[in-house]
Amino acid sequence: MDPRSVFEVDIVKLDGAAAAPAEDILVVEEPLEIQVRAPGDAEWTSLSVTMRTPGNDDELATGFLLGESVIRSRQDIASVESWGPFSGEVRVRNVVRVALAESARFDARLLRRNFYTTSSCGICGKASLEAIDAMRPRAVAGTELRVAAETLHALPAKLRETQAVFGCTGGLHAAGLFTPAGECVAVREDVGRHNAMDKLTGHALLAEIDVADKAILVSGRASFELVQKALMAGVSVLAAVGAPSSLAVQLARAFDMTLAGFLRDGRCNIYAGERRIEAA
Amino acid sequence: MDPRSVFEVDIVKLDGAAAAPAEDILVVEEPLEIQVRAPGDAEWTSLSVTMRTPGNDDELATGFLLGESVIRSRQDIASVESWGPFSGEVRVRNVVRVALAESARFDARLLRRNFYTTSSCGICGKASLEAIDAMRPRAVAGTELRVAAETLHALPAKLRETQAVFGCTGGLHAAGLFTPAGECVAVREDVGRHNAMDKLTGHALLAEIDVADKAILVSGRASFELVQKALMAGVSVLAAVGAPSSLAVQLARAFDMTLAGFLRDGRCNIYAGERRIEAA
Repeated sequence: MDPRSVFEVDIVKLDGAAAAPAEDILVVEEPLEIQVRAPGDAEWTSLSVTMRTPGNDDELATGFLLGESVIRSRQDIASVESWGPFSGEVRVRNVVRVALAESARFDARLLRRNFYTTSSCGICGKASLEAIDAMRPRAVAGTELRVAAETLHALPAKLRETQAVFGCTGGLHAAGLFTPAGECVAVREDVGRHNAMDKLTGHALLAEIDVADKAILVSGRASFELVQKALMAGVSVLAAVGAPSSLAVQLARAFDMTLAGFLRDGRCNIYAGERRIEAA
Repeated sequence: MDPRSVFEVDIVKLDGAAAAPAEDILVVEEPLEIQVRAPGDAEWTSLSVTMRTPGNDDELATGFLLGESVIRSRQDIASVESWGPFSGEVRVRNVVRVALAESARFDARLLRRNFYTTSSCGICGKASLEAIDAMRPRAVAGTELRVAAETLHALPAKLRETQAVFGCTGGLHAAGLFTPAGECVAVREDVGRHNAMDKLTGHALLAEIDVADKAILVSGRASFELVQKALMAGVSVLAAVGAPSSLAVQLARAFDMTLAGFLRDGRCNIYAGERRIEAA
């Protein structure tokens, strides 16, 4: 556990009408700026500021760039480093600088928040799906990964076991990478669900772990953005403890990804790609 | 309930290893673009694209602008309307256009996502707090609102009772506005927690409901962004069913707002401004 990820405060505990002083441990939330520089660029370009839990910032930035299709493999990155100015005697490392290799596709237009807009129908869910198609996600359709129902049901307990910070703060989202046999490969946590996913996919890319034959479980809900990130990373099975949104399901179906929701207590709903789940 | 906010799909239900076809109701997630135009501007400026649940879009845009300090009262808005191009025969209303009055403060620099950066210490939590201070939040410090512990404990059940969509989808965040006596004034829901808050504060502003003497309860966690939105709306008591983050607590303390977390089962933690909660 990164000591920067939790923060102790004095609070008042209220039990019914009885108030008593107490201590509490909070999950830390701090801004992180992601900067990139393409070969030949003189300046760093600021791409995004996200509120995140400190720790694994290099992975977060890597996963973010993977999700936005700026990079597709370890080779697209020349270097990643934490950076920040001094505040008094302490260097505040709330910037990650990613130097891109020649092979990266840095297209500033794709990275604007309004990339959902296309000329065909303006801004809508359909345009959002078209925008993902334009980002050329890895083909997960042909992936022959199979996960047994029993293995799937066992994942939430395994994710909770490995969550280092949630237990003491109650305030963190988690994303975990699992083999088809249910073995946990890596777990990342963050105050933001999209950040936990970015850290996990970024970790897999930096460590050159093949995710095509693995499943990801997220502790919360499955939004469009989470399915996008998993898809761009090349994951073919995504499971969520919470509910998916309409557009998350549409995106999973459009690219033949397996999406399971409400995975808890030995039950779940399969919203897309059910052939990869081995039921009775 | 807005019929556009839910979406029915065919799924496979997995109970243990037994799979069976079923139907499920999903919460809709679609992009919404917020555009503004100041008096004298020839063009609309695109400020933000957010993934939201359709419904109350005018309130969402209004609350967003309030949270970013572009507007401070009903009088700062000349008009708000949903807009969108035709897709076939249907107009896809996924844009909200807010025409600002002369009194609005439209400063594009304040609205950039990297507004957390200041020259003093770069990007960090301290700079984030300074950025809020520069947005001149309403003074909540002098607010003499008092909420009885008993009333506070009763709010989560009241919020759940009024949630129209959550019951059938399990996928929505909610934010509710309550009087000090615990009477529910309004509830708004969305797939994104920040959107539910924007819809609620936007509703209060458009309906000219005074929020200074009321409390807001959110169904999830309390992040920095949620506290910012409540603060800019002028709310002095914010309660959350989930955990707050470190920066959310720091922000509430800096502006003397009352912040309660883990409000459930007759217990809660008070992280700031405990004098407004009447305990035994």
